[in-house]
Amino acid sequence: MPASLLPALAEIAGAAHVFGPEADRARWLSDAAGGPDGEALAVVRPGTTEEVAEVMRLAHRTGTPVVPLGGNTGLAGGGRALPGSGAIVLSLERLNRIREIRPAARLAVVEAGVVLDTLHRAAEARGLRFPLFFGARGSCTLGGNLSTNAGGSNVLRHGSARAQCLGLEVVTPQGEVMDLMSELHKDNTGYALKDLYIGAEGTLGVITAAVLRLAPLPRAFATAMVAVPALADALALLNRLQEATGGAVEAFEYMPGAYLDDYARRFPDRRLPFADRHEITLLVELASAAPRDAAAGPDGRPLLSATLEDTLAAMLEKGRVLDAALAQNMAQRDEIWQRREAAWEVAQGSRHRVENDIALPLDRIEDFLGRMAAVLPRLAPGADTLVVGHLGDGNLHYTIRLDRCAKGGDAGFRDRLREAVEEQVAALGGSFSAEHGIGTSKLTTMARRKNPVALATMRAIRKALDPKGIMNPGKVLP
Amino acid sequence: MPASLLPALAEIAGAAHVFGPEADRARWLSDAAGGPDGEALAVVRPGTTEEVAEVMRLAHRTGTPVVPLGGNTGLAGGGRALPGSGAIVLSLERLNRIREIRPAARLAVVEAGVVLDTLHRAAEARGLRFPLFFGARGSCTLGGNLSTNAGGSNVLRHGSARAQCLGLEVVTPQGEVMDLMSELHKDNTGYALKDLYIGAEGTLGVITAAVLRLAPLPRAFATAMVAVPALADALALLNRLQEATGGAVEAFEYMPGAYLDDYARRFPDRRLPFADRHEITLLVELASAAPRDAAAGPDGRPLLSATLEDTLAAMLEKGRVLDAALAQNMAQRDEIWQRREAAWEVAQGSRHRVENDIALPLDRIEDFLGRMAAVLPRLAPGADTLVVGHLGDGNLHYTIRLDRCAKGGDAGFRDRLREAVEEQVAALGGSFSAEHGIGTSKLTTMARRKNPVALATMRAIRKALDPKGIMNPGKVLP
Repeated sequence: MPASLLPALAEIAGAAHVFGPEADRARWLSDAAGGPDGEALAVVRPGTTEEVAEVMRLAHRTGTPVVPLGGNTGLAGGGRALPGSGAIVLSLERLNRIREIRPAARLAVVEAGVVLDTLHRAAEARGLRFPLFFGARGSCTLGGNLSTNAGGSNVLRHGSARAQCLGLEVVTPQGEVMDLMSELHKDNTGYALKDLYIGAEGTLGVITAAVLRLAPLPRAFATAMVAVPALADALALLNRLQEATGGAVEAFEYMPGAYLDDYARRFPDRRLPFADRHEITLLVELASAAPRDAAAGPDGRPLLSATLEDTLAAMLEKGRVLDAALAQNMAQRDEIWQRREAAWEVAQGSRHRVENDIALPLDRIEDFLGRMAAVLPRLAPGADTLVVGHLGDGNLHYTIRLDRCAKGGDAGFRDRLREAVEEQVAALGGSFSAEHGIGTSKLTTMARRKNPVALATMRAIRKALDPKGIMNPGKVLP
Repeated sequence: MPASLLPALAEIAGAAHVFGPEADRARWLSDAAGGPDGEALAVVRPGTTEEVAEVMRLAHRTGTPVVPLGGNTGLAGGGRALPGSGAIVLSLERLNRIREIRPAARLAVVEAGVVLDTLHRAAEARGLRFPLFFGARGSCTLGGNLSTNAGGSNVLRHGSARAQCLGLEVVTPQGEVMDLMSELHKDNTGYALKDLYIGAEGTLGVITAAVLRLAPLPRAFATAMVAVPALADALALLNRLQEATGGAVEAFEYMPGAYLDDYARRFPDRRLPFADRHEITLLVELASAAPRDAAAGPDGRPLLSATLEDTLAAMLEKGRVLDAALAQNMAQRDEIWQRREAAWEVAQGSRHRVENDIALPLDRIEDFLGRMAAVLPRLAPGADTLVVGHLGDGNLHYTIRLDRCAKGGDAGFRDRLREAVEEQVAALGGSFSAEHGIGTSKLTTMARRKNPVALATMRAIRKALDPKGIMNPGKVLP
């Protein structure tokens, strides 16, 4: 890169928004996933879409790699500027305006740098909800959420980030602005470019703004912690609740006993849900925007809560539920969610780990856990696992912890463990990547597991849209 | 094309499934949209995905254009083999197996040539529903539905074809089979290729099979014809019903008085919904899979019907509903739907017409109709319009009929009318293409109206995936 790049960037975004190697840049270069930090020639924070386009034109002219970055909460390394790559980090954090919220149309027009939780609160103030929900919501940004097609706890009912997005604004690798900001629910005008940029992790262009759907704010929630004897009972519970409510299950989360043990160690002041320890506990939440579900029924209980209580009681009687604790108010609901959302913090307690963000057919999860429990002691003596997951989507965050394992620090060994997980996942019809993205952390897995015709097609698309290879190089495609 | 192509095709698919120019090929070459028929060197009906791949390899080797075809019900010309193009028509009709239906997983694995209604019936037999629904369902195929990202009457609640599809099998222009047949609800493994092939109208590859989501079969329907004084009242009704039911509106269809007049002329034996003629009538349907909605409430009425009745009664009292007729049984429900589904047949009564499949923000539809009513008499004296639409999606099928208009037979004149419609649509933030596809009928519109950066990007993708330009050439991209 020419030494003149820093002044040129300063000319575009203002000197106060360009950070060279001498500046403190940890917040943009530290790796949330726990890998080594990134390195960049410069971090630039443009303030408008046009400035983003100017940065891209400069990068394109000079052949400089660009790493687009949102809240830097990614867990797959997609936002990490690779050492030696000579890249600039393009932070979208100053594109942080909610351009408008239109309650009648149930949509929000946002810029890429808006923090997820900021949109949550703005929508709620208008009686609406943006139903994308996960632990990092206080710092992750919507541009990053879309670029990774983020998931979370409400995908079961509302779909992942892609499903929430009606329109998109993208800056191309050549620095052109592509306006796909449709507000329509039916809009078939050629190829699904919007869907292509969503989930591309910044390798095809830079998402700068989006039109997002909003959902009505639920009038009623019914939330519980539930202990069951086996995963088959959990699935039976899920199906009965979907059946009884016509699909009102918002979250169906898996927290095994071992996770709650670690949670209790990490947060000794917090309460656990049950007096007894159970192998399998669940977080179950129903929600409804319909007045009938919030209204009191003949026995005085709100219909939605009554449905949850009665379904649990019937299964308790048959021994298919072991215990259940229903939230009686919003504070208790928050306490329940706090347990689930501590997952990332709980995982940090371990230095050497192999993290797997996998999806499986729902009825194969028990099989997967059993197979891993059988092979792991042989492959990695001393290893244990930390598992949480979005059970209703078949999505497990399956972490192998290697701190008490002799070879935990050996990257090749960790990759062999990853391969062992992949093998079981593939054999059971699952996916090696559910909602965290590919980034750099799953490149070897992509090479091993993705259909080769699909991989070649992806490479051809990337090459066609970014012939110079400057968009987030080294990510997503091996 | 070499004369040896017919024997080579016969070698692949069997002589009984290759039709040269001497055969009667009207069912594959006639144009459902009413344009001139297509011409093809051959029609071939491969029986398996592997045979499709072999046909594509032959076509690729010989540089022969290929037009993939489903049920030949397209309204935009996407399946028409262009005269002089030297194309072969690749009919998917023999890939007509439902490979499996898995009720517990709520999914179906189907081949591209399965007729939509066949899947409807197979799913219903298992207590499930495939919620893609429109008039051509008795002959259109799922491959065509996916290739055009078809919409219809249930998009409001369930989304269009793309939203129903979990996985896809595609044969590339080079004749390779791409297996993207995921059954998972979370599966982020690189770019959204599935979404790219859906809606590409066979210009990027041939869809040969798909994994589709199924929904639970509703336990309760509540269906009515409703007359309202103005479109603003229709929207108020839609919002109240969504509010009261928590989003259970399945269909919200627009049938103006003029449409019902034509319907009565075309089908003199059939009943009209109301004794009086109304300018604005609607088809409204609620549905629910929840037992509570099908169960009788305190007054003996099923909850879902009671919600519809009470909402209509309240608006009737305020003069915001003029009349309403609720279906009392499934026969009456069928009669109501018959009126809406006759739209294609009713339109056939006119020889010269300009058909527009447009989407608008819901609160701009009245404005659009008013603007067109103001300009049309000046632009096309003698013209009248036939309008029906999926009002809940903002999707209008706005047909200008030119039989009593001097210049109706002049293609340039018709294109100027199309341009006048486009202009109003664009000014109101709408889209010139909602659910019928681009095909050849909207190529000039694409050139005029689609964002040029997006058009260039689409062309780059097409060129990268099909460098020889053999996949359905002359379609979708101008």
